[in-house]
Amino acid sequence: MLKIPPHQVAGHQAGNGKLGPLVDESGRFYKPLQGDERGSNELKFYTSFSSNSRILEHISKFFPTFYGTQLIEASDGSGLKPHLVLEDLSVGRVNPSIVDIKIGSRTWAPEASEEYIQKCLKKDRETSSLPLGFRLSGIQIYGNRESGYWKPERTSMQNLPAEEVKLILKKFVSSNTSTDMDLQPDCAFAATVYGGSTGILSQLLEMKAWFEDQTMYHFYSCSILIMFEKGLALEGQNPGGQIKLIDFAHVIEGRGVIDHNFLGSLCSLIKFISEILTDPNEHKSLVSSVNGVN
Amino acid sequence: MLKIPPHQVAGHQAGNGKLGPLVDESGRFYKPLQGDERGSNELKFYTSFSSNSRILEHISKFFPTFYGTQLIEASDGSGLKPHLVLEDLSVGRVNPSIVDIKIGSRTWAPEASEEYIQKCLKKDRETSSLPLGFRLSGIQIYGNRESGYWKPERTSMQNLPAEEVKLILKKFVSSNTSTDMDLQPDCAFAATVYGGSTGILSQLLEMKAWFEDQTMYHFYSCSILIMFEKGLALEGQNPGGQIKLIDFAHVIEGRGVIDHNFLGSLCSLIKFISEILTDPNEHKSLVSSVNGVN
Repeated sequence: MLKIPPHQVAGHQAGNGKLGPLVDESGRFYKPLQGDERGSNELKFYTSFSSNSRILEHISKFFPTFYGTQLIEASDGSGLKPHLVLEDLSVGRVNPSIVDIKIGSRTWAPEASEEYIQKCLKKDRETSSLPLGFRLSGIQIYGNRESGYWKPERTSMQNLPAEEVKLILKKFVSSNTSTDMDLQPDCAFAATVYGGSTGILSQLLEMKAWFEDQTMYHFYSCSILIMFEKGLALEGQNPGGQIKLIDFAHVIEGRGVIDHNFLGSLCSLIKFISEILTDPNEHKSLVSSVNGVN
Repeated sequence: MLKIPPHQVAGHQAGNGKLGPLVDESGRFYKPLQGDERGSNELKFYTSFSSNSRILEHISKFFPTFYGTQLIEASDGSGLKPHLVLEDLSVGRVNPSIVDIKIGSRTWAPEASEEYIQKCLKKDRETSSLPLGFRLSGIQIYGNRESGYWKPERTSMQNLPAEEVKLILKKFVSSNTSTDMDLQPDCAFAATVYGGSTGILSQLLEMKAWFEDQTMYHFYSCSILIMFEKGLALEGQNPGGQIKLIDFAHVIEGRGVIDHNFLGSLCSLIKFISEILTDPNEHKSLVSSVNGVN
């Protein structure tokens, strides 16, 4: 029985007769193959990557498992359509907090069409991609059983200045419920989600080490998903913080050069997360000292 | 007594009645303040940087020392003009090999004028800046006393594919004289110039660590100079490998974000140098095995 993924925060979404991904109960995610070269390019990437013997497990774990392609009934009722069959990343998660971060101050490859380059360049300049190296493409933060999720408009997240982005990444790991997101974030779970030897920062640094070395692929317009379970964090258990790379319609061959565009931007994200870990109450103490409370 | 710098490989050059930098015998380098905002911006950067107490010696050593400004007779005979007074980086060098590498796949700041952005974007796309993250802006390689320097046309260096750039960076540390630069480079001095605890790679990694952390400045259109003395290397002495950052007319404030554009590109250069150190004869052995020599 196929259904609409309950925890998608960005990208094309099924529902209301639209074409979008579907999931089944066995843990598979069906992504419609886009009809143009984006579809064939993403299939080409998954095929190459999943059979690449130089990709070791400590790196492949950051990517959705690929199970080939399959013809299934498309979500828009247009009949049988080819879909990529991927791992459903939300399997096993109850109430995941998720942020989708599109990486790269440049989302276009040098050999893209002029029309596509101009479209991307305009968007990169209008969003935080150019100044920060990435933009928030979508987010959902679990509050608690009563308040459910805080899920702001996707477009409102894309063009935030550095301080606002940092505030969102603090809210992401705070105990605030979805109804008091306006309050100062307490960063209650920063250490357990972002920190620690298996936390988000460690995973980002592991990914960074690979990007400093690998010259096989350049990842344009990909996203890093960051996920964890606040419910577990609230119970004092390991919140299962995890990063995954998704969306490979614009991956090209690296031709012996590292992906400097992705790497620099990844380092920018790492700096944001590191600063939150080092000084979670930086802003709070600033407010306090301005008010003379300290 | 002011004279034209003997070892300038890129940028505006004095001589033939043109405006360019001059040096004196006390080790100072006089750079004409460009009349437009480039001049005032570079002066603003040097003033800020040289008085910034957060810049420690292990980083400031990568920058030319700044001695203020001075009115001196311009090289084009136009009379007294304001010049930046800087450290002459070639002081103490006899026959330096020098390469000027313009860093960044993007050489324009987000807030530059539309006209300037379009001009830079065009050049970045036409040169190796976009694919490699940097372009070779100029080079001189010392051969020996008889053959002097190999100093190819600057424009011929800017748009080389990855393999050609690597070849140049190998020639840079080879014992080939300037008349046999067409021969396979032997990378005789790779280990002593690029390698070692005080070599070029170590210095680049020290600079990289700073760029992963600092959010004060974004360096657009700057160059890294790499210099050493082949004469010393030939005598088995320490060749004095050194990197310096130059050209700050397009530096802007970092505003709490790392310089992801510079950092990613710096990592790309580091990867080139690392590969040469790891496998200096990579290309040679490929040729040999194709010829059945191995």
